[in-house]
Amino acid sequence: MAKHDQALPSQQPLSNLSEEISANVEKTKKRRVIKTKAKPLPIDTVDASSADDLRTSRSSLASEILDNLKRFSHCLLLTRVGQFYESYFDQASEIARLLSIKLTSRKWNGVQVPMCGFPLIHIDKHLKVLVQEHKRFVAMCEEFPRVTCGAKEFDRRVSRIITPGTLIDEPFLNPFENNYLLAISVPSDVDLVSGLNYSLGLAWTDISTGEFYSRQCLLESLQDELARIAPREVILTNDLKSTPEHPVVKALVEEGSFISFVAFPHTNDIPRRVEYDHPHDVGFAGQNLSAEELLGAYLRANLLEHMPTLPSPSHETALNRMQIDSHTIKALEIREGVYQGGSKGTLLGVTKRTITSGGARLLARWLCAPSTSISEIESRQAIVASFHGHPHFRADIKEIIGDAEDIGRIVQKFLLGRGDCTDLLSVARTIDIWRAIIKRVDEEKHMKDTGMNEVKGGWRSFETLVNQIVDLNHLSTRIRTALSADFSTREGPAENMEGITEVESTEGVHSFGKYQGKWIINPDFSQKLASLHQGLQRFLQQKDRLERELQLQYEAPSLTLRNSPALGMHVHISKAKRDKKQLQATPTFISISESGTTKSYFYKEWSHLGGLISETISALALAEKEAFDILRREVTYNAFALRRNAEILDELDVTLSFATLAAEMNFVRPRITDDCSFHVVNGRHPAVELGLLSAGRVYTPNSVEMAPTCNLHIITGPNMAGKSTFLRQTALIAVLAQVGSFVPADFATIGVVDKLFSRIGAKDDLFRDRSTFMVEMLETADILRRATPKSLVIMDEVGRGTTVKDGLALAFATVHHLTVKNQSRCLFATHFHELSDLLGWPNEIFNQGAFSKVRFYCTDVVEIEDGHFTYAYRLQPGVNRESHGLKVAQLAGLPPDALSVASQTLNWLKRREPESLCVPEIIHR
Amino acid sequence: MAKHDQALPSQQPLSNLSEEISANVEKTKKRRVIKTKAKPLPIDTVDASSADDLRTSRSSLASEILDNLKRFSHCLLLTRVGQFYESYFDQASEIARLLSIKLTSRKWNGVQVPMCGFPLIHIDKHLKVLVQEHKRFVAMCEEFPRVTCGAKEFDRRVSRIITPGTLIDEPFLNPFENNYLLAISVPSDVDLVSGLNYSLGLAWTDISTGEFYSRQCLLESLQDELARIAPREVILTNDLKSTPEHPVVKALVEEGSFISFVAFPHTNDIPRRVEYDHPHDVGFAGQNLSAEELLGAYLRANLLEHMPTLPSPSHETALNRMQIDSHTIKALEIREGVYQGGSKGTLLGVTKRTITSGGARLLARWLCAPSTSISEIESRQAIVASFHGHPHFRADIKEIIGDAEDIGRIVQKFLLGRGDCTDLLSVARTIDIWRAIIKRVDEEKHMKDTGMNEVKGGWRSFETLVNQIVDLNHLSTRIRTALSADFSTREGPAENMEGITEVESTEGVHSFGKYQGKWIINPDFSQKLASLHQGLQRFLQQKDRLERELQLQYEAPSLTLRNSPALGMHVHISKAKRDKKQLQATPTFISISESGTTKSYFYKEWSHLGGLISETISALALAEKEAFDILRREVTYNAFALRRNAEILDELDVTLSFATLAAEMNFVRPRITDDCSFHVVNGRHPAVELGLLSAGRVYTPNSVEMAPTCNLHIITGPNMAGKSTFLRQTALIAVLAQVGSFVPADFATIGVVDKLFSRIGAKDDLFRDRSTFMVEMLETADILRRATPKSLVIMDEVGRGTTVKDGLALAFATVHHLTVKNQSRCLFATHFHELSDLLGWPNEIFNQGAFSKVRFYCTDVVEIEDGHFTYAYRLQPGVNRESHGLKVAQLAGLPPDALSVASQTLNWLKRREPESLCVPEIIHR
Repeated sequence: MAKHDQALPSQQPLSNLSEEISANVEKTKKRRVIKTKAKPLPIDTVDASSADDLRTSRSSLASEILDNLKRFSHCLLLTRVGQFYESYFDQASEIARLLSIKLTSRKWNGVQVPMCGFPLIHIDKHLKVLVQEHKRFVAMCEEFPRVTCGAKEFDRRVSRIITPGTLIDEPFLNPFENNYLLAISVPSDVDLVSGLNYSLGLAWTDISTGEFYSRQCLLESLQDELARIAPREVILTNDLKSTPEHPVVKALVEEGSFISFVAFPHTNDIPRRVEYDHPHDVGFAGQNLSAEELLGAYLRANLLEHMPTLPSPSHETALNRMQIDSHTIKALEIREGVYQGGSKGTLLGVTKRTITSGGARLLARWLCAPSTSISEIESRQAIVASFHGHPHFRADIKEIIGDAEDIGRIVQKFLLGRGDCTDLLSVARTIDIWRAIIKRVDEEKHMKDTGMNEVKGGWRSFETLVNQIVDLNHLSTRIRTALSADFSTREGPAENMEGITEVESTEGVHSFGKYQGKWIINPDFSQKLASLHQGLQRFLQQKDRLERELQLQYEAPSLTLRNSPALGMHVHISKAKRDKKQLQATPTFISISESGTTKSYFYKEWSHLGGLISETISALALAEKEAFDILRREVTYNAFALRRNAEILDELDVTLSFATLAAEMNFVRPRITDDCSFHVVNGRHPAVELGLLSAGRVYTPNSVEMAPTCNLHIITGPNMAGKSTFLRQTALIAVLAQVGSFVPADFATIGVVDKLFSRIGAKDDLFRDRSTFMVEMLETADILRRATPKSLVIMDEVGRGTTVKDGLALAFATVHHLTVKNQSRCLFATHFHELSDLLGWPNEIFNQGAFSKVRFYCTDVVEIEDGHFTYAYRLQPGVNRESHGLKVAQLAGLPPDALSVASQTLNWLKRREPESLCVPEIIHR
Repeated sequence: MAKHDQALPSQQPLSNLSEEISANVEKTKKRRVIKTKAKPLPIDTVDASSADDLRTSRSSLASEILDNLKRFSHCLLLTRVGQFYESYFDQASEIARLLSIKLTSRKWNGVQVPMCGFPLIHIDKHLKVLVQEHKRFVAMCEEFPRVTCGAKEFDRRVSRIITPGTLIDEPFLNPFENNYLLAISVPSDVDLVSGLNYSLGLAWTDISTGEFYSRQCLLESLQDELARIAPREVILTNDLKSTPEHPVVKALVEEGSFISFVAFPHTNDIPRRVEYDHPHDVGFAGQNLSAEELLGAYLRANLLEHMPTLPSPSHETALNRMQIDSHTIKALEIREGVYQGGSKGTLLGVTKRTITSGGARLLARWLCAPSTSISEIESRQAIVASFHGHPHFRADIKEIIGDAEDIGRIVQKFLLGRGDCTDLLSVARTIDIWRAIIKRVDEEKHMKDTGMNEVKGGWRSFETLVNQIVDLNHLSTRIRTALSADFSTREGPAENMEGITEVESTEGVHSFGKYQGKWIINPDFSQKLASLHQGLQRFLQQKDRLERELQLQYEAPSLTLRNSPALGMHVHISKAKRDKKQLQATPTFISISESGTTKSYFYKEWSHLGGLISETISALALAEKEAFDILRREVTYNAFALRRNAEILDELDVTLSFATLAAEMNFVRPRITDDCSFHVVNGRHPAVELGLLSAGRVYTPNSVEMAPTCNLHIITGPNMAGKSTFLRQTALIAVLAQVGSFVPADFATIGVVDKLFSRIGAKDDLFRDRSTFMVEMLETADILRRATPKSLVIMDEVGRGTTVKDGLALAFATVHHLTVKNQSRCLFATHFHELSDLLGWPNEIFNQGAFSKVRFYCTDVVEIEDGHFTYAYRLQPGVNRESHGLKVAQLAGLPPDALSVASQTLNWLKRREPESLCVPEIIHR
């Protein structure tokens, strides 16, 4: 909700989407033309006259900015001017305020115009504030050099619009989380606010990794999908903007999603169909197809010149994923903690042992959408078991995987026209890692054949997965031979290697020696490179020869040939007193500088040779850039296979992580069945167990056995005796079991759960005018409407927050509905022991009546001497009528006289009224 | 809790604090020596031979790093090596993992050593991750150039340790929030775990703004102080490290504080006493003094060379601040939202109209610690009233203040040895703003004298505040005359002006023309600057003359004198074909480059002159740096007065903000009394009202009248009818009234509240093994122990989450204790209408017995036709036995058959048992 409100200011319609797209197509054409015009060797730096040009072009800058402000009126516009990003006119004060930078002004044609700006290097910091914190759209207007008639000029154009959902490789992106952009397509032919449960199309992509999914889903489960996908930005068509009561909009607001409304391009002149890098089954038409189109149009309108070819989307169907409703994802703290936001103490945080960022992203996805396919679960389990049973093998694979790069992101960077040679090397290295994995698996297989093959089935799953790795060794070899040995093995921090452009920088060139080892591409790569390198070698040899000759000829051993920003090419002697005599006497050596004991001379022959060296170096830098572009294209050509291999690696990382977890925390492999059983012996709550362990305490495990004949358990017992924890652990064990992990228990058999529901915890939302009780009832109603016999439901203290009788009546009605209508597996914890009376306990009538499938369990307090007591966390059959609230109050430190008043009152109340209610006949009919 | 756990790895003792401090003193001495040795004019760039030196010094780098790793073993060490920060040995893999950068390795003396690194420009990004996210300490080892025998070498030393609480001006600091470092001093002579409620010393500072406070507080209110101060880091002495059960440690863990344990320096050779910039009353000795010493020692050990002179601390006493307990600060969402974390929908977020970052920080501080001094409150109210009554005056002052800079931060930056000329200009500008305020207030005064003087008292408060502004016009004048007119009025983004050092950068110098306008300091500032400027002028004139002469002499109009990195000083002709003839024929012009239509020549006379220009420019840059240092010292000399003025400006901003708020949202000025009354007519909840407004709905106001004879109100009524909101709004109105703001009501009289308590909302903390009910009881017990007759208590549904009888008994005991023992003003909302029976309603016995001061109010549901209904949010005297829980369930969408079962059950329960309990005599004795 809060998010939504922040979003309002930027919910401007992209009204001219189609206009923009066509404009962009034109711009792209223009760019191509300019490219071919550009001269390759601008060896001169900007000079005074061209600086003047720049200054006069300022007035055209003003009109460019005004144009862009109009065209991209829904965005904040940042315009690059030299080494700054600047903002002008009305937006300047807003941007200055958002970024806490100074607002200033400048004169344009006699008019004082507000402006603000910041240096290039702060762009990431400020984009984070504008896009991630304030959810604003930022249009980046960049400068593109254009060389005409020797003078340098610039084309300036908006090359990209950055929105919360279209981040590419900004450094503030968290590599361990997905940054999804979700498009939702709503059928146009249904009555918008009708109660009908129609199908929606969903398509979502993480533009930083290239992952792309689509599916259809029913309106009623939209909110659950939102909780699972956790999109950073959601796209809807413009027509929904004016209908805040539309159920889709309401669900998005409810989940606090950031919504962007766009005009869907209906004109025919724009290619509506998304182009994929791989053919995919278009037969799967329907709403998801138009969602994909909407997503594609939005990406094109914002990524502009950075638009990649999209991979074909993976189609999901509802059938093979456990649905976890949105409250439950939050209440069970599967991904984020309720109170902290972070992943500390969450299921993800406690179970994560992945070592790659891709693995971490996959684990988060799996935990929010466990599988319902027994074969899929079992094949994952088999791989986990293989790892689990072979610690050495596990350690080896872990070490190999540890060096893998985030290939998904790198391939996407290349597709987006970014990346550098370091990324090329990463691709080659990771291909080698895939090969190493295949090799190590092969070795293990041979060891198995000769002996320990206890998990044969597991091994087959393993091989099936690993055999899907596409052989890309040719690409690895190609990259490695194309990159110079120097570059591939260079010492020093990885960032040292960033980008070829470094060579072009204007830093002071001292002596050309250091260029020897600086080249990135192997000279053999092309004829052109080879001849340039030969030329450079020749010139450098000439330089050395010249230097030696001059030293000898003029008896000046300290003479060197140098280059410096202030003196240009010059002859330098460091011991002038001793060595200058003969040089001084020669007119071709012209003294140009003296400082301390050194002296510098101009010498034409060296100036000429130095100039040739300098030119050749620039030409080499350019030739390397061309070579890099060729290599990049070769990588993107293999994008599909690279991604597929990366996905397999992610899966290996996650299953490996499960095995490590199982070994560390003593998890067991659960048996998965397709009936409605649920049998866990000595189950534990992984996060709470960890919390207790760190406090030096031991967790008390508990068992649960649900079957079609006894699928609803009423749990009573004192406060603080672990009821809520027991409920949660049961749900978490189901989640873990169905993602393929082992589970924290001594033994487990789990009948596949189709949907997981919970009504636990308590919160209100006064800002949205909802009391705690209202929130509880909304969640309860949702469960009663949607739970099936294959579902698992946990409910804690339904009926609090209203009068006793209201609460009791509602709790009873809920249990009645669950056991009679929904017939789901359910754990129902309550302090209303009267509920047990209403359900017929202990009169044993439940073996035939409406409540025949209900069972009763409880925890208890054990009194020791002197009024002290401990909790019996272990569940027992039966009903506990004592919640021992006063004991908790005593523990909490309630003043003794208040405790005494409470205890007298309690005694009086108990005397006044018997403990159990008699069974009302009207209910058990 | 979660935070604490993350903290564990870095809770290494600063065991050698004293050692480090003395080492640092030595280092500082050493630095001074080096400074005087340094040569001022290193005009030559690094050459090949010195690069070789650098390379051989690498092995000494290894030993330096090993030394530092040992000395700063509790830190992550980042060592600057050229343009990179690097990390070596074991820490490298940890840092690479934390920062997601690549781990690589290098050979040192034949040993392969792990390493990682990143370019300088990424330092802020990475520090944020290490320090703010991972709460690690980072030791920054910097390079300091040392020029010996012409060759450049480096001293490398750790110049600062960055911890979460010692951030100076890192760009990731949020200027709108304080970043406090808190030291807690525990008396060493008390039994650590005894139940005694001894005094603690607290001292806290925001090193980025220089604010510094200290106070003593009782152990029992430590947690409330923590919630109010919200420190980013807390310092304790080492001896508490081994006692996790110590109540101070427990309170810190409870609040999720990040703790650093340090060894307190007990040796005498280190100055223990903190040196302040202003004498302060040391008579106020005790625990707070040792807390100040602890804080000072910690700062010295970490800021090292950046250690500023601290201001004298402001001493707070408990008497003049409303205590708000820690749960209440969170539950009332005063500063942060419970579920979102941000300030959206919070009291701070809803009431904030401040325009400066200093004002925003002060407002947050005030809201968490309202005043209990009537005179203070009234004088703030008077200023608010003055602003409120004069919209034009308000608008003018608002405009003036809007341009003020964050002087507190700038002064602190200067004290820390940072800052640049832009900051100087900010100081001058802000001094002018203070003067403008005084002038505008003066004008208003004269207007008042001649007519509209309805808020005379307000005006006096206004003048009292404004008259405290210290006249610093001399400083403003000094800065403005010292800075060049060019710099002071320069167009373009503020960041363009950053730092004098820019002049020294190695960027390609094209023609020296652009240096004309680049100087920052006025040439008149010193004799040295004046003569250097004269020299430069002369040289530049000579250059122009030479250029003209050559153009004429050689008939080459396109000839210019230039400088470029590759060619050094050279003569350039852009139209070679036309102009080169005569030059070509002259042997003193030696052709060195040709490209396209241009041609470049070496010409000795220009090389010589250009060299002089280049040297003079470097000398000027250095002289400007010296001048800046002088000016900076002049500012820091006035630090006390500058800070005082800045504080006054903060207060004006906040009171102005209150006036704006009152005008926008129709707030009224409350009357503050020192009795125990609390009378609010038509009060509103500011955040909820805003939420409803944005949904197009109207908020129903409610009145409350508490007096010593009727100070406990029982509130009953249906769900969703606004009970919780009413409770919260009452507490928020008390907070707003006592910070000096107007309040959302038609009329209000507030007897000063000494402590504000609440027991509202519901949460559990399973990770720490606390059920919802346990959390409720802990908070209730705390209130019953600490509330006084001057306190205000709001309690919502105490007794939920256990059996009905337990809950009822506890609710009754709580009310009993509050009215008989605490005698506080209290609003108690409940769904246990049976509680009213226990309290004697409606038998009117309350006019004499123990519950004579209890009153009963309720909300209700109004049935309309066809089973529809609306809520009557307006409170009425009486008790409502109906919570209408089933109506809420119906609204929430519970399936009709479940509703029907619930309603049958409810009817049966009602038939079975009468509505009211008879009054138990044992209780009313």
